[in-house]
Amino acid sequence: MTQYKVPVIGGDGIGPEIVREGRKVIDAAGEVFGFDVDWIDYPHGADHYLETGELISEDTLKELSQYKAIYLGALGDPRMTPGILEKGILLNMRFYFDEYINLRPIKLLDGIESPIRGKTAKDIDFVVVRENTEDFYIGIGGRAKKGEKKDLLEVKRQLYSAKFGLDVETDSEEIAYQIGMVSKEGTRRVIEYSYDLAAKRNNHLSSVDKANVLSDIYGFWRENFTEVGKNYPGVATDFNYVDAVTMWFVKNPEFFDVVVTPNMFGDIITDLGAMIQGGLGLAPGGNINPKGTSMFEPIHGSAPKYKGMDKVNPLATIWAGALLLDTLGESKAADAIVNAIEKNVSAGIVKTSDMGGTNKCSEVGTDVAKIVKEIG
Amino acid sequence: MTQYKVPVIGGDGIGPEIVREGRKVIDAAGEVFGFDVDWIDYPHGADHYLETGELISEDTLKELSQYKAIYLGALGDPRMTPGILEKGILLNMRFYFDEYINLRPIKLLDGIESPIRGKTAKDIDFVVVRENTEDFYIGIGGRAKKGEKKDLLEVKRQLYSAKFGLDVETDSEEIAYQIGMVSKEGTRRVIEYSYDLAAKRNNHLSSVDKANVLSDIYGFWRENFTEVGKNYPGVATDFNYVDAVTMWFVKNPEFFDVVVTPNMFGDIITDLGAMIQGGLGLAPGGNINPKGTSMFEPIHGSAPKYKGMDKVNPLATIWAGALLLDTLGESKAADAIVNAIEKNVSAGIVKTSDMGGTNKCSEVGTDVAKIVKEIG
Ligand SMILES: CC(C)[C@H](C(=O)O)[C@@H](O)C(=O)O
Ligand SMILES: CC(C)[C@H](C(=O)O)[C@@H](O)C(=O)O
Repeated sequence: MTQYKVPVIGGDGIGPEIVREGRKVIDAAGEVFGFDVDWIDYPHGADHYLETGELISEDTLKELSQYKAIYLGALGDPRMTPGILEKGILLNMRFYFDEYINLRPIKLLDGIESPIRGKTAKDIDFVVVRENTEDFYIGIGGRAKKGEKKDLLEVKRQLYSAKFGLDVETDSEEIAYQIGMVSKEGTRRVIEYSYDLAAKRNNHLSSVDKANVLSDIYGFWRENFTEVGKNYPGVATDFNYVDAVTMWFVKNPEFFDVVVTPNMFGDIITDLGAMIQGGLGLAPGGNINPKGTSMFEPIHGSAPKYKGMDKVNPLATIWAGALLLDTLGESKAADAIVNAIEKNVSAGIVKTSDMGGTNKCSEVGTDVAKIVKEIG
Repeated sequence: MTQYKVPVIGGDGIGPEIVREGRKVIDAAGEVFGFDVDWIDYPHGADHYLETGELISEDTLKELSQYKAIYLGALGDPRMTPGILEKGILLNMRFYFDEYINLRPIKLLDGIESPIRGKTAKDIDFVVVRENTEDFYIGIGGRAKKGEKKDLLEVKRQLYSAKFGLDVETDSEEIAYQIGMVSKEGTRRVIEYSYDLAAKRNNHLSSVDKANVLSDIYGFWRENFTEVGKNYPGVATDFNYVDAVTMWFVKNPEFFDVVVTPNMFGDIITDLGAMIQGGLGLAPGGNINPKGTSMFEPIHGSAPKYKGMDKVNPLATIWAGALLLDTLGESKAADAIVNAIEKNVSAGIVKTSDMGGTNKCSEVGTDVAKIVKEIG
């Protein structure tokens, strides 16, 4: 019997209870497919921080980096300033483990009604690959240094024609700035991953950027996209502006097969993607380093007001568990879980209130686990 | 009889033909409401650039800055590198005239079916105020300077903890960066405008940002939002993350009254807004400097493949014409035009093919002009 060790960070709010259901389903899959998971609990999140002052230590990160996959519930707590937990734990892990692929399947399951008129399961089935370690997520910015105050319109006109660059001096209160960066290596590896994925799916890869305005950073992105593409003559490609893509996701989701996009736009369009596939209750995400430590999570937040009520939908977390098993090499078990989710959803009997049902979170977990055993 | 002079840039593709219909409707409104517009044509766009090498000269910008309002068709041509016309003409004018308000009404008209299931005219009626002269639109970026090549993951981990800032040295091919900035003055004036607008509407103002990750620039934005808000105790406010907002636009558009947002996120969410209100054929935009020169345009592009076919929907441009009249102080005429558009749409008889009709662009213009005269 194969034995896996998987660290679990339940996190805040509803995190622990949804992860419990995910574990239940993975354990059921283990019985059927012949593996066993040793779950190792980690306490990180708001409570831990408020008690100990520690977000996540370098030692813990080192320790976690021995493992292939981490299972994450949710982070976020109303007692905290926005950004502290997100940056101190979630983004910190994404960067530390160099999880450069954020994988987000956008798939409308049979039995779920999309909020988009006229779209059914056959119309919405694509994957967004979001770069996960660069772009405007590197956390660099500040306020401009003190100096002679210039007429602001003049400064901006000159900034606009790039004559000033960062040498602008102005009153220290006047300006805040933020810097994004992408690297050749960082860009190429995620684009390569996406071409590979497209080659396994329907041979269509769409790049999403805003190269007509943020030309420096996304012009570079496009160059790399084109360069890497030379090795994939069989994959059809297109460049898309992020603003237009928000429209196509609604109007023509059937156009997309694999979408690759820098970090920040990826954040935005995958939430929209979650919505068209039926809402956050159904949207899983993987933070993947194919040669290192990956991390799997529902893309929804910690929903503090439902904490401990055994009420929220665990399906996104269960689906994230399937992605986790894929990374461990248990792809049959992963498929069985996705099938079981689809069966649960298309039966439409055991479901939480967000899906119009009256069942508890734990009952949905139990139902999916049962289906996994039946079909396994 | 009041006399106005209004510069017109028809631009590329379908630009000239849609602006022709907009003029037709404004002229009709003038007959009813007692004003006359002297239209002054400007040739700027791809053809002009390819013939003369000029995008738009400083002299022309100076000349245009005498006027209160410019009417713009569309810019964009397949013969040009993406970004050249957009940055060289459109953004150039927005920056030059310091048009710091990009006003985008998101209103589902009676008679239009939203692509969002179950949403009707009463659910979708809000305004997005997009900051229009700052943020990541300032056009500053580059590639990192040559130097000793470091291990990229190490560089990024350090960048992430902000130990390196911009002093990172790496191979010149390796990194591209982009800088965004917001100023106190630039932030406050657009936020003030938005509070004022909310106070005239339903007293609810939503800020859209990503302060949990791009904390420097959008933390500053939030500070200013809060500061300005002290003068508007009657306006309810909330902070929203841009990723979540793409979901709420689909799920709960009725939540929104006035939305204020920095430039780049504004670009993205207003396209999604256009989609939920029925598509680009119906979405107008105003680039406004309340004390200077403003500019009005449909938010759709130049649709080169339909050029000269008298086929596309002119309603967005006609609606932009109403916004233009508002700026000239002709608010009754502006209201009459919006009413006439609504009547045309709810009658559902004279309509272009994107709305399931068979009429020409010019027939729709004529119909709206006729309704303006009837109801005026
Ligand atoms: C919580 C937040 C920092 C995070 C992000 O912006 O990446 C989230 O929105 C996500 O998409 O995983
Ligand atoms: C054409 C482009 C530069 C422009 C923008 O990004 O602002 C457009 O998308 C818009 O929204 O007006």
